[in-house]
Amino acid sequence: MATFADIGVAAGINILFAVAFLVAFAFLRLQPFNDRVYFPKWYLKGLRSSPMHTGSFVSKFVNLDWRSYIKFLNWVPDALKMPEPELIDHAGLDSVVYLRIYLLGLKIFVPVALLAWTILVPVNWTNNTLAKAQATEKLDYSDIDKLSISNVPFGSQRFWTHIVMAYAFTFWTCYTLRKEYATVATMRLHFLATERRRPDQFTVLVRNVPPDLDESVSELVEHFFLVNHPDNYLTHQVVINANKLAKLVKEKKSKENWLDYYQIKYSRNQSKRPMTKTGFLGLCGDKVDAIDYQRAEVERLSIEIAEERERVRKDPKCIMPAAFVSFRTRWGAAVCAQTQQTRNPTLWLTEWASEPRDVYWDNLAIPYVSLTIRRLIAAVAFFFLTFFFMIPVTLVQSLANIEGIEKRAPFLKPIIEIPFIKSVIQGFLPGIALKLFLIVLPSILMMMSKFEGFLSISSLERRAASRYYIFNFFNVFLVSVIAGTAFQQLNTFLHQSANEIPKTIGVAIPMKATFFITYVMVDGWAGVAGEILRLKPLIFFHLKNFFLVKTEKDREEAMDPGSIGFNTGEPRIQLYFLLGLVYAVVTPVFLPFILVFFALAYVVFRHQIINVYNQEYESAAAFWPDVHGRIICALIFSQLVLMGLMSSKGAAQSTPLLIALPVLTIFFHRFCKGRYEPAFARYPLQEAMMKDTLERAREPNFNLKAYLQYAYVHPVFKNDDENDYEDDEVNGILDENVLVPTKRQSRKNTPAPSKVSGTSTPSLPENSEL
Amino acid sequence: MATFADIGVAAGINILFAVAFLVAFAFLRLQPFNDRVYFPKWYLKGLRSSPMHTGSFVSKFVNLDWRSYIKFLNWVPDALKMPEPELIDHAGLDSVVYLRIYLLGLKIFVPVALLAWTILVPVNWTNNTLAKAQATEKLDYSDIDKLSISNVPFGSQRFWTHIVMAYAFTFWTCYTLRKEYATVATMRLHFLATERRRPDQFTVLVRNVPPDLDESVSELVEHFFLVNHPDNYLTHQVVINANKLAKLVKEKKSKENWLDYYQIKYSRNQSKRPMTKTGFLGLCGDKVDAIDYQRAEVERLSIEIAEERERVRKDPKCIMPAAFVSFRTRWGAAVCAQTQQTRNPTLWLTEWASEPRDVYWDNLAIPYVSLTIRRLIAAVAFFFLTFFFMIPVTLVQSLANIEGIEKRAPFLKPIIEIPFIKSVIQGFLPGIALKLFLIVLPSILMMMSKFEGFLSISSLERRAASRYYIFNFFNVFLVSVIAGTAFQQLNTFLHQSANEIPKTIGVAIPMKATFFITYVMVDGWAGVAGEILRLKPLIFFHLKNFFLVKTEKDREEAMDPGSIGFNTGEPRIQLYFLLGLVYAVVTPVFLPFILVFFALAYVVFRHQIINVYNQEYESAAAFWPDVHGRIICALIFSQLVLMGLMSSKGAAQSTPLLIALPVLTIFFHRFCKGRYEPAFARYPLQEAMMKDTLERAREPNFNLKAYLQYAYVHPVFKNDDENDYEDDEVNGILDENVLVPTKRQSRKNTPAPSKVSGTSTPSLPENSEL
Repeated sequence: MATFADIGVAAGINILFAVAFLVAFAFLRLQPFNDRVYFPKWYLKGLRSSPMHTGSFVSKFVNLDWRSYIKFLNWVPDALKMPEPELIDHAGLDSVVYLRIYLLGLKIFVPVALLAWTILVPVNWTNNTLAKAQATEKLDYSDIDKLSISNVPFGSQRFWTHIVMAYAFTFWTCYTLRKEYATVATMRLHFLATERRRPDQFTVLVRNVPPDLDESVSELVEHFFLVNHPDNYLTHQVVINANKLAKLVKEKKSKENWLDYYQIKYSRNQSKRPMTKTGFLGLCGDKVDAIDYQRAEVERLSIEIAEERERVRKDPKCIMPAAFVSFRTRWGAAVCAQTQQTRNPTLWLTEWASEPRDVYWDNLAIPYVSLTIRRLIAAVAFFFLTFFFMIPVTLVQSLANIEGIEKRAPFLKPIIEIPFIKSVIQGFLPGIALKLFLIVLPSILMMMSKFEGFLSISSLERRAASRYYIFNFFNVFLVSVIAGTAFQQLNTFLHQSANEIPKTIGVAIPMKATFFITYVMVDGWAGVAGEILRLKPLIFFHLKNFFLVKTEKDREEAMDPGSIGFNTGEPRIQLYFLLGLVYAVVTPVFLPFILVFFALAYVVFRHQIINVYNQEYESAAAFWPDVHGRIICALIFSQLVLMGLMSSKGAAQSTPLLIALPVLTIFFHRFCKGRYEPAFARYPLQEAMMKDTLERAREPNFNLKAYLQYAYVHPVFKNDDENDYEDDEVNGILDENVLVPTKRQSRKNTPAPSKVSGTSTPSLPENSEL
Repeated sequence: MATFADIGVAAGINILFAVAFLVAFAFLRLQPFNDRVYFPKWYLKGLRSSPMHTGSFVSKFVNLDWRSYIKFLNWVPDALKMPEPELIDHAGLDSVVYLRIYLLGLKIFVPVALLAWTILVPVNWTNNTLAKAQATEKLDYSDIDKLSISNVPFGSQRFWTHIVMAYAFTFWTCYTLRKEYATVATMRLHFLATERRRPDQFTVLVRNVPPDLDESVSELVEHFFLVNHPDNYLTHQVVINANKLAKLVKEKKSKENWLDYYQIKYSRNQSKRPMTKTGFLGLCGDKVDAIDYQRAEVERLSIEIAEERERVRKDPKCIMPAAFVSFRTRWGAAVCAQTQQTRNPTLWLTEWASEPRDVYWDNLAIPYVSLTIRRLIAAVAFFFLTFFFMIPVTLVQSLANIEGIEKRAPFLKPIIEIPFIKSVIQGFLPGIALKLFLIVLPSILMMMSKFEGFLSISSLERRAASRYYIFNFFNVFLVSVIAGTAFQQLNTFLHQSANEIPKTIGVAIPMKATFFITYVMVDGWAGVAGEILRLKPLIFFHLKNFFLVKTEKDREEAMDPGSIGFNTGEPRIQLYFLLGLVYAVVTPVFLPFILVFFALAYVVFRHQIINVYNQEYESAAAFWPDVHGRIICALIFSQLVLMGLMSSKGAAQSTPLLIALPVLTIFFHRFCKGRYEPAFARYPLQEAMMKDTLERAREPNFNLKAYLQYAYVHPVFKNDDENDYEDDEVNGILDENVLVPTKRQSRKNTPAPSKVSGTSTPSLPENSEL
């Protein structure tokens, strides 16, 4: 039972950590040699050149300008300064709406915290239940508990306050959610409407083209759409199974890299030709001259690639029964994507094509029956993963103890027996097995989503995020609330009646408040501050820079800007929503800690999005229905838990009042689903027609066919020199796509000044002025 | 505990009843004066004229031809003879697919019964658990129980048979369901494809047209679709709120009827002018001359109708924000119905228009928010109706006892105190309150569906059917299995753990086998046989015929052919599916009783559909997904119950094996949903395009606009003489719609010989030959 002092100490330590991270960041980001670690986004946009080319030798690596250190906290206002429309332009809608999740947390919890502290805290505080209990039953309690619902006596009339507050919080949360959903939907539609011409606006992905004896897939697709969409069909591209080719190209690239490496090595030290072994990872096999060997390998692969390329183009087996079909107008594409084409709803499946870089090529050819079976397998596998993952982990843990290691590797015995090392192993090993599993988990979940056959990277990430949230809910939240593994809980809940379960959780919730406060501080405060430091990319960049980088292009590749990581980031935020909603009524003292998290994370991630992250795709905030749905789930869960808690506190007569809350919330969710979700799944015809008309008036002679013809070529054909798919005209168009005209310029140590917010931005002096 | 003898007696009685009904029917249907009761469908189709116009006076009413009595059972082969395609032509696809539900029952349960009797019955029979229990614990058991799973000893290895059988039955049921779903989907698509031109193929219902200050609804609709569907839009009709007008027209008709009645009365007896009272139901108020009074009333109403008609046409308030929009092609309508029109998904909602006679006009103008709130209210109300309906019924019962009546109406005391009457009241009154409620229930459910705002009669009925099924499941099935009202069960289940609930039900199931066998015989055998007798329509027809019928048209109206009554009939069949699936493994002796029901009901309803029922609408079997879904529910329920039963019989190790069954079944359901359900919700573009192309080639100069212009006029405008909406051209087209060219003719006592099955139909001699 933690007292305020305990919490204070924990808070102090974590604040210290957080501040240390922030100061370290503020210092490191000013050093020119870290520039590519902390501002990669600007490099990728081509708006910033390396400061290491100018100035004296020392100032190439270390910032000697003392003035810049004075204003070292300037990144915070800078991060907040860029207005939202410009941020959309700069980083895409996905990133901006992702930031709005943190804002939403603030919007929900600031009024909730104020209300809870002005009303609930006094109501809880002015009781003496816990003091009495301490006197009679020697029950220990903390100051935190005195502020929580635990301090209200059994069957007290004061519980009415909590019920009224539960209603108030629910209504406020729903009101905010609805407003936010409306805003995001409008932003999305506006974004789609103001977007420049993009291939995916005109294109529909058609899958499960039925096999035909007389016609090739390409002919079949063309005939089908010429017949059924005669006025709208423009062109199409069949999907080619180039997975093997892609693999070969990748291999060749790696070999070329090695060749470069050995050549540089040789040019530095001409006395000795570098040697390598031909076997696995260069560790075994015959020893040969490295340069000759790699050169031969590259040549062999070049021939193989040429053959494979020929084969892929000729072999009908490489043509997958899927195609990207493009239409004359957005209207035609919208119609085709939203309608059923044939009698058999599992053939000629049409859906919006994702943008070319978002397409997950490997999954384009999975037939319908296989898809449903894959979903079943993935669902069952996920169930076992969630509830039984402790079994293999425990197994590994039982193997990885001191005795086990000594038994299996007797030669290690002398080292292990050193007391210090022994205690480290005993203390860390079991934890490491679990930690390793948790680190690998998001990748496992991504693999599961890939196995399920989703067609775009964005949908893969959305699915993995859902699963990660469910996993966290059972294995982080519930496991912390109720002792025992998820499987043990499952067993308990199966043997408990439906109205006992909320009681069990409800009773445990107030007791865990201090634990979760500590959790928020460690994971939320220090963790977020650690995020901005980018310790891992920092180290890796310098390692790569030192050992591998030879050309400017290599340095570009060593940058690793990373991305938001929706599949792990969003479930993590959701855990805070869950905690906040659950504890809002029960232990209001919890709320300020959540608020600090949301505020800090908002600033940090806004900075990262402006300066660091490079989104791999743009889904136009397609994830918002998921975010909304999960907050609704958390809300309903918090209501059920409160119901259980109330009935165990002698306020069972409140149950009918409280049961209305989840019913109303579900109803609210259904309303929102009907009202706003279509904006995230369909493209209204009116919008399409408006854009078509506008564009036809503006560019009546635009050659759409040429523009679309090669938009959906497999990336392996696009990036290759020998590519004869793209002629100059198309290249020109594609380039036009990449070269984004911009009004912005990058300064060295700060994000760009915003045009909209004027030129009054206080900024650090340019490096060139030194 | 019923023995075989008890069951035998019960079966004997019910068979006797059933046979009595069938013989009575066979006799009554041969009497010419019953012709309109038993063959109304043929009269409505205009293919049969009254046999009462020909022959001698006696033979007008009684069939004196002895030969017809010999073949009195001929209706059975006659009913089975008409081939399915002709039946579709004759009675519509809805009816034919409805019959297939009974056929599906036979398809599922015949092999299941065979397998269960050859394998499960011997396995159960060759134990002596019950005999032992009787010896040691004086437990009573019946012969039925000896054949059931109860006779297998605790923890026996024989339970493996039951598990294997559960798998076999599940796979067989799913296989049959899938095949049937595929067949029905094909039938539906074929039906839609071969249909003649119908207005609903080209028409889309648009709702929630946003208000506009400058334009009327009609202009707004026209402009919107001219802009957004420029190539496809043809014409539209706004929806007019003519509910008041319809009421007036109905009132006028009734007054005219009364006028006729008094005029006939006066013409028969000229000595006395008929008098009437002007008050409520002619029971109170001033006494006036009836003919003058009614004539004045009719005149007054005529004026009012004319005024109202004028008002409706002029007043913009009567124009509802909804319209039927027609397109040039089926393709255009299919596109518009399946796509979203504007940013706001709650405005300009489009969906397929039902056929004109299926439209439920009153609900066309409900806005989106109101709709969601109505759904919430209906859901809550239905919850209370299902679980708490016993409260008002019990209240009425407690009021309606002898003492209550004597207290409230002391003057009745002398009559009530007569012993016979007293016992009747005491015996029947409480039952009558419940029975009355159950009779009114389908109407209550239909009212709820109407309140929810469904737009077609078919969807109203589907919704009411779902609700009726759920109500039956809790209040008929579960209440019979476990003692106590539905509310008490709900309470029990809330206090029981998730794995106790199947156990509770599972243990009770085998004990209730005899009860349900009796239920099947009473409700299924005798009830279905009673259906064919049509006792109520028979009596009502003759009463009306005697007292009211004046003209041939009156007689037509007195016929009351009725319809299938999907909202009550289908849930009733589903109860048998549920019973069959639950008892297939547990008490296989149950199955033959179910089989008899399905076979008998199939024949009876086939006869009724051919000769009696007159469907009010044609939804092209849109109800099949519901039917399929409910059978799946029953299957999953039966699996869970079996799991509970097994774990209580010491075969808990089977649980993992059995839990795979519901998982697989749910997966199967999802597969079917994806694979077949779209055929029931969307219209594939390929089909639409094919029909369009065909029709354009066949009738290039068809005036579609004229054909569609007045198709969706409110019925009150259509049926009225003063109607100036329809000009001759349109009337001609509409008439063409009504006058169905037919190859069929009706014989007196048998259904029509089918052209397809040849002319060898043995039929009774024509009346004219007498």
